[in-house]
Amino acid sequence: MLIIGEKINGTLKKVGQAVLDRDGAFIQDLARRQAEAGADYIDVNAGTPAAREPEDLVWLVETVQAVTELPLCLDSANPKALAAALERTARPPLINSISGEESRLTEILPLVPGRAAGVIAMLLDDTGMPQGVEDRLRVAHRILERTRAAGIPDEQVYIDPLVMAVATQQDGALVALKTMRTLRAQYPDVRFSVGLSNVSFGLPVRTLVNQAFLTLALYEGLDAAIMDPLDRGVMGMLLAAEVVLGRDRFCRRYVGAYRSGHLGRPQ
Amino acid sequence: MLIIGEKINGTLKKVGQAVLDRDGAFIQDLARRQAEAGADYIDVNAGTPAAREPEDLVWLVETVQAVTELPLCLDSANPKALAAALERTARPPLINSISGEESRLTEILPLVPGRAAGVIAMLLDDTGMPQGVEDRLRVAHRILERTRAAGIPDEQVYIDPLVMAVATQQDGALVALKTMRTLRAQYPDVRFSVGLSNVSFGLPVRTLVNQAFLTLALYEGLDAAIMDPLDRGVMGMLLAAEVVLGRDRFCRRYVGAYRSGHLGRPQ
Repeated sequence: MLIIGEKINGTLKKVGQAVLDRDGAFIQDLARRQAEAGADYIDVNAGTPAAREPEDLVWLVETVQAVTELPLCLDSANPKALAAALERTARPPLINSISGEESRLTEILPLVPGRAAGVIAMLLDDTGMPQGVEDRLRVAHRILERTRAAGIPDEQVYIDPLVMAVATQQDGALVALKTMRTLRAQYPDVRFSVGLSNVSFGLPVRTLVNQAFLTLALYEGLDAAIMDPLDRGVMGMLLAAEVVLGRDRFCRRYVGAYRSGHLGRPQ
Repeated sequence: MLIIGEKINGTLKKVGQAVLDRDGAFIQDLARRQAEAGADYIDVNAGTPAAREPEDLVWLVETVQAVTELPLCLDSANPKALAAALERTARPPLINSISGEESRLTEILPLVPGRAAGVIAMLLDDTGMPQGVEDRLRVAHRILERTRAAGIPDEQVYIDPLVMAVATQQDGALVALKTMRTLRAQYPDVRFSVGLSNVSFGLPVRTLVNQAFLTLALYEGLDAAIMDPLDRGVMGMLLAAEVVLGRDRFCRRYVGAYRSGHLGRPQ
């Protein structure tokens, strides 16, 4: 599973300030620590107003690329910011994200072919947040019709089933899991990605709820997660889940992580 | 899910010695601690030679019942020991266990109706350990034919899908999960139970692997687990998994456990 490190997100106060202050050391430290912890992609979100976002996102891209060879995940809904950042990425990035909203489909999809490694697609559209599995499937069909028309192969489309916080919607996780299972049967090549921590919003000891959901989502075929690679609890459970799911041959990664002291738990 | 506390097991050296020494205080401490940690049943296994097992199991039953009102899980394949213990149980116990082995079916099934709350049935038979899902289904059909003929309703039969250690059989957990899913579709009322720690045999930090498997087994409808209720990691993950699976209304049990300091992690 691809680990997309979530920590360089300008909507978080300290990160946003670092973007405004051009505090490259702060950003690079976050990039390095996530890379060392096992991230496969580094998400970059400027979180600034649309007018200055292109410039800020380009700065983030260059700042992060100066310290890691990991590919990036360009986190913006702003086509101008995405287009500017795509000019500077050293390796094909993921684009985070489109949805079934017409403006995003129209303006962002043309940026993907030949330039991005893939695009994350959230299952919501201009009618708002989806209500259940059927609503999500309807949006997914629409998105995949459009990505295919844009020449993007299904294996570059990372569907985000939009998991709701279980604290406020009791079946929020189950709806996402069922959506994944249903779509996988219909689109065998499509990928799935989640914003992992959404499921635990409003609850204490969120890492435990994130871990339980991650395990179930992996069982249903999760391909990527936007998550905190510095959360040792989640990272350990990811390794354990892959062992249980028979995806870690001879348990090599699990035992290797143990031997190098990476199966510890947060205190 | 029913938590069957596994710690009073005479095949463990200290417990076996306590049985031989009639060290009631040692046994009662294990019973009390498991009850306080949230066990629903207390498993009792004398682990002594067949000739003295009836007497030892009766002693365990009376010793444990003196300090807890929890029902017991009589852990023996010895019909004489089970019959003697059933005479002394204050509340209907579970019987752990039968299998597809003819001798167990013939000698133990008649003890169940009207006396036990249920019987755990392991999916192996006189031909030995099962090889995969099909083999397990074949044994399950045979067992359920016999339990029905003995007048035991399906909801009192706890099928143990016999999870293999993933360290030696890569798909050991997946085979058990698929067996559960297939049987649930065919026998909607049957229950499932696992010996939780089998899955992690031979691996380091076993609790993590146990936690990942428990989460997946709950998703596939696990009803009971023979496990260590003193493992705070597993107990916390059980609560988190029930939240994610939408089985903890308003997250009351999870938040309650947090407030009473029970969502801690082992150091």
